[in-house]
Amino acid sequence: MIFQANDELKAFVAEAKTYTINGKVADYIPALGKASQNDLAIAIYYPDGQWISAGEMEKEFTLQSISKVITLALVLMDRGFEYVFERVGMEPTGDPFNSIAKLETMAPTKPLNPMINAGALVVTHMIMGNTVEERIQRLVSFIRQLANKSTIGYCEEVARSEFESAHLNRALCHFLKQHNIIDEDVEQLIDLYTKQCAIEINCFDLARIALVFAMDGVDPESGIQIMPADIARICKTFMVTCGMYNASGEFAIKTGIPAKSGVSGGIMGAVPGLCGIGVFGPALDEKGNSIAGLKLLELLSKKYELNMF
Amino acid sequence: MIFQANDELKAFVAEAKTYTINGKVADYIPALGKASQNDLAIAIYYPDGQWISAGEMEKEFTLQSISKVITLALVLMDRGFEYVFERVGMEPTGDPFNSIAKLETMAPTKPLNPMINAGALVVTHMIMGNTVEERIQRLVSFIRQLANKSTIGYCEEVARSEFESAHLNRALCHFLKQHNIIDEDVEQLIDLYTKQCAIEINCFDLARIALVFAMDGVDPESGIQIMPADIARICKTFMVTCGMYNASGEFAIKTGIPAKSGVSGGIMGAVPGLCGIGVFGPALDEKGNSIAGLKLLELLSKKYELNMF
Amino acid sequence: MIFQANDELKAFVAEAKTYTINGKVADYIPALGKASQNDLAIAIYYPDGQWISAGEMEKEFTLQSISKVITLALVLMDRGFEYVFERVGMEPTGDPFNSIAKLETMAPTKPLNPMINAGALVVTHMIMGNTVEERIQRLVSFIRQLANKSTIGYCEEVARSEFESAHLNRALCHFLKQHNIIDEDVEQLIDLYTKQCAIEINCFDLARIALVFAMDGVDPESGIQIMPADIARICKTFMVTCGMYNASGEFAIKTGIPAKSGVSGGIMGAVPGLCGIGVFGPALDEKGNSIAGLKLLELLSKKYELNMF
Amino acid sequence: MIFQANDELKAFVAEAKTYTINGKVADYIPALGKASQNDLAIAIYYPDGQWISAGEMEKEFTLQSISKVITLALVLMDRGFEYVFERVGMEPTGDPFNSIAKLETMAPTKPLNPMINAGALVVTHMIMGNTVEERIQRLVSFIRQLANKSTIGYCEEVARSEFESAHLNRALCHFLKQHNIIDEDVEQLIDLYTKQCAIEINCFDLARIALVFAMDGVDPESGIQIMPADIARICKTFMVTCGMYNASGEFAIKTGIPAKSGVSGGIMGAVPGLCGIGVFGPALDEKGNSIAGLKLLELLSKKYELNMF
Repeated sequence: MIFQANDELKAFVAEAKTYTINGKVADYIPALGKASQNDLAIAIYYPDGQWISAGEMEKEFTLQSISKVITLALVLMDRGFEYVFERVGMEPTGDPFNSIAKLETMAPTKPLNPMINAGALVVTHMIMGNTVEERIQRLVSFIRQLANKSTIGYCEEVARSEFESAHLNRALCHFLKQHNIIDEDVEQLIDLYTKQCAIEINCFDLARIALVFAMDGVDPESGIQIMPADIARICKTFMVTCGMYNASGEFAIKTGIPAKSGVSGGIMGAVPGLCGIGVFGPALDEKGNSIAGLKLLELLSKKYELNMF
Repeated sequence: MIFQANDELKAFVAEAKTYTINGKVADYIPALGKASQNDLAIAIYYPDGQWISAGEMEKEFTLQSISKVITLALVLMDRGFEYVFERVGMEPTGDPFNSIAKLETMAPTKPLNPMINAGALVVTHMIMGNTVEERIQRLVSFIRQLANKSTIGYCEEVARSEFESAHLNRALCHFLKQHNIIDEDVEQLIDLYTKQCAIEINCFDLARIALVFAMDGVDPESGIQIMPADIARICKTFMVTCGMYNASGEFAIKTGIPAKSGVSGGIMGAVPGLCGIGVFGPALDEKGNSIAGLKLLELLSKKYELNMF
Repeated sequence: MIFQANDELKAFVAEAKTYTINGKVADYIPALGKASQNDLAIAIYYPDGQWISAGEMEKEFTLQSISKVITLALVLMDRGFEYVFERVGMEPTGDPFNSIAKLETMAPTKPLNPMINAGALVVTHMIMGNTVEERIQRLVSFIRQLANKSTIGYCEEVARSEFESAHLNRALCHFLKQHNIIDEDVEQLIDLYTKQCAIEINCFDLARIALVFAMDGVDPESGIQIMPADIARICKTFMVTCGMYNASGEFAIKTGIPAKSGVSGGIMGAVPGLCGIGVFGPALDEKGNSIAGLKLLELLSKKYELNMF
Repeated sequence: MIFQANDELKAFVAEAKTYTINGKVADYIPALGKASQNDLAIAIYYPDGQWISAGEMEKEFTLQSISKVITLALVLMDRGFEYVFERVGMEPTGDPFNSIAKLETMAPTKPLNPMINAGALVVTHMIMGNTVEERIQRLVSFIRQLANKSTIGYCEEVARSEFESAHLNRALCHFLKQHNIIDEDVEQLIDLYTKQCAIEINCFDLARIALVFAMDGVDPESGIQIMPADIARICKTFMVTCGMYNASGEFAIKTGIPAKSGVSGGIMGAVPGLCGIGVFGPALDEKGNSIAGLKLLELLSKKYELNMF
């Protein structure tokens, strides 16, 4: 076990917490805006079932963009490598996550990777099922299995609120539809996507999910291979090259942990073979990552040599 | 009167018609695809009420992008210069008419001009009225007045067909909504816009409408000022700087007539103080302009010194 | 003659001059920075040889971007329409005059028009002659003929100063060389281009040059056709579609006079068939046009109906 | 030792070699064009001093873009993390390696990362020394130390040839100079950069250099720390996120080895803690990577589980 004591982790959280003052809680929908600027929580889960934590562990938050990695895993299992990557690319991009410009200049039109919104919408489009409800439940079931927690669900209020304001994602969908990348009704896809983003977890759940990715798809407790190892690896690779919006490169340099962030302030970190990490700090920097969460992971990585490079 | 005889005009049409073979009829909706590749018609209308014509004059076609100029005139009358140009720019662009990339790179977001789709959607959004039907009838009435023909209406089949395939325009609308440039329901705006594009006229009607613009807004027969002179001038200016998609500059150099084209193969030309011209030639060049229509106008401009520069 | 008295013109200048306070003199080279923020001068030259003026008429200034139009005329005479427009386009652009991005995204690479820097460099590259000195003298001779003034030359200090700071133009040249649009030594071309931009005139000279363009290439005093009518027209067309940087569209709407501005604060206006106008007002707006000069031309256009649309 | 026998490696090379037929040797300069389309060589170097190889091991080739990683390491040692990353970013990009467009749209101007040409030129600009000769020798010395071979130098013919055709890199330099990112004479910087790219090695040397990166900067034979561990890690991180031009993401997914390619057909791979790999296969795919080299590394990674994710 790498962390001898909770006290050390608490000290790191206290240090990183001083950065929350420079961040800003996302407020484009009211439900997100209710988060506390000063919160910072972390859970670390080890393969032997032990775990440590610090900070406001009781807080629940929505996955938001973190869901992109998990949906990608599910869809790769259902559809296969070839099918998925014919429709979405593998290349990182220097553009913002919600950019539409690159879609236009590339020929043929294909979102650069599954972590930008355009790519994530294509991936969500591939979730199997006959109805939105069937498809979201399929994803929720997968997440419950990863987190080993049967009560996980999505927050209707957040989903509805995001559905109402998702103009940019609708623009992306219609553009993708024009180019025959997706063919379903846009409102239906936005319904599914906003529900996916609104799945609620806490830091502990997030660390548990991350651990499965860290262990190449194996459930550390049951020993069951929840997802194939190569799919877990693909996901970790995307987390390194494009997991932290357009600060992914800097995060890889400074911290070197495969990680995915969300606008709710969550960060999921999967240290290969070692541990799963769940962070929650809703104060964001200008690129949309948890400002204190980034600092906390950097401190931990330096101290415990978690940098994989 | 500049054209002494129909025979001369027929000869020009015959010469220009040889170019139709290199063009391509728009076929993104079935209704447009039914047009005859080889058609080429022209009507020229003079202030004294005389007119000449040649070619397949009986053919009706939809206004498509030509409607952008007329809607702009209507909206300028209703809303005023300041209101309109706070929401849409006045600058030509080297990008294609349906480009979304520039919307993203400009800050604040504002369509460059009312002739590209993004700008035209903003202008259509400003048509006054409580319902789509009320608003489209308001535009139809204005066009009937300009054409002095009470039977003008829109083609339901074309409108419906374009409504179903207008993914890219929906993408533009949602993008504009995200940036608070428009605030109405997107499906409603697309409904109105596709009906506007589906208004049906023939070459003679188009020449009559053009003549009002050419005469600075005055109806040549009744002497009534249908629109203020400065609005007619603004429209002619946009026709010069951005009327022929991203071939506007070349057309201004080679022909020098304020003109607006549509994907149905129509071209409306307004020679200041002289005459109105309506052209129909559905075979398009790769930029979306009537390939034989362009040639015909170039021939006429050279022969009769219609170039305004 | 459209202007009855100098007094009226003086009043217009006084009104427009109040706008200089919101402008900024170009200071990227010391020689330009020495201009007086508050200066505003205008000369209007008529075909009958009469002229009127107001403001600081004695001030000399360099042509800067105004030279682009004159060089284009010279090169069109030497090389012909086909040759020139195979190498530079005719389309206006919504991008800044010094943009390089569009060069990269267009295939094949071809500057959009001769008024942006990339296009102007290609045009200057086409000036005939064996040495830079021979080529610049060829252009100077042409300008002396247009202005009917044998003492016109270029300012060595300005040319040298611009040569030293022309990093962006060098970047454009090397990019064009990579794509085989130009093939001469870049330093040599920059030498020629900066000398071209440094040609010195005053408002009166500028109005005289503009008059030749206004009169379709005919010298109003001698009656000699200095340049072919179609070349004069092409130049006026570019002045309308791209003469005022990326404020060309707005200027065409509000003023409607073919005009070309320079960063020294000069504006050359050619009212077709009517008069030539030379303006000097070194305080620039944020797009690089003379802020008071724009206002002055707008006032004159409204009052005397100079708008050509 | 991971590879039991040369025979197995030979078989992999034979399999990968079948892909050379679909590639194309770079021919923008004659010296590169002389390479044999069908060549494919590999050397793998282990920390215990053992090594294996297969293919045309005797062939020498120039580092080209592979030099970007080594120069970055040198400059980080000389200038420090802060200094370097104030001038060049850390983010991967979906654009081609020689793109200039992104430089213009980003504010402030800063190359996205040190692996694209714009960024690499900024890094080379930071090599210390009073003359080009002094600076290139400083880099050569560092490379000799990494490769443990005192005869390494640069190929004058390749350097001169690239110097003559480096128009695009000159464009990038002048653009960077305009924005004050670099301040030295452009021709001097291009001289230094083309010499850097022309440094000659063989597969064995490349594997030896890669091994030092793999071992966090420690020379495997002498045990000396040639570069600090964190600098070696930073370099490996860039190799993952942007080492293979705009196919970096796909390579990370499929192979998962930190690697850097060059247009000569070389690939340097540094498997953390395990081994250094040098590949040479001059037939390139359309993105500029060795087509058979990519395949070979993918086969090896799958067989021996070298994927670090």
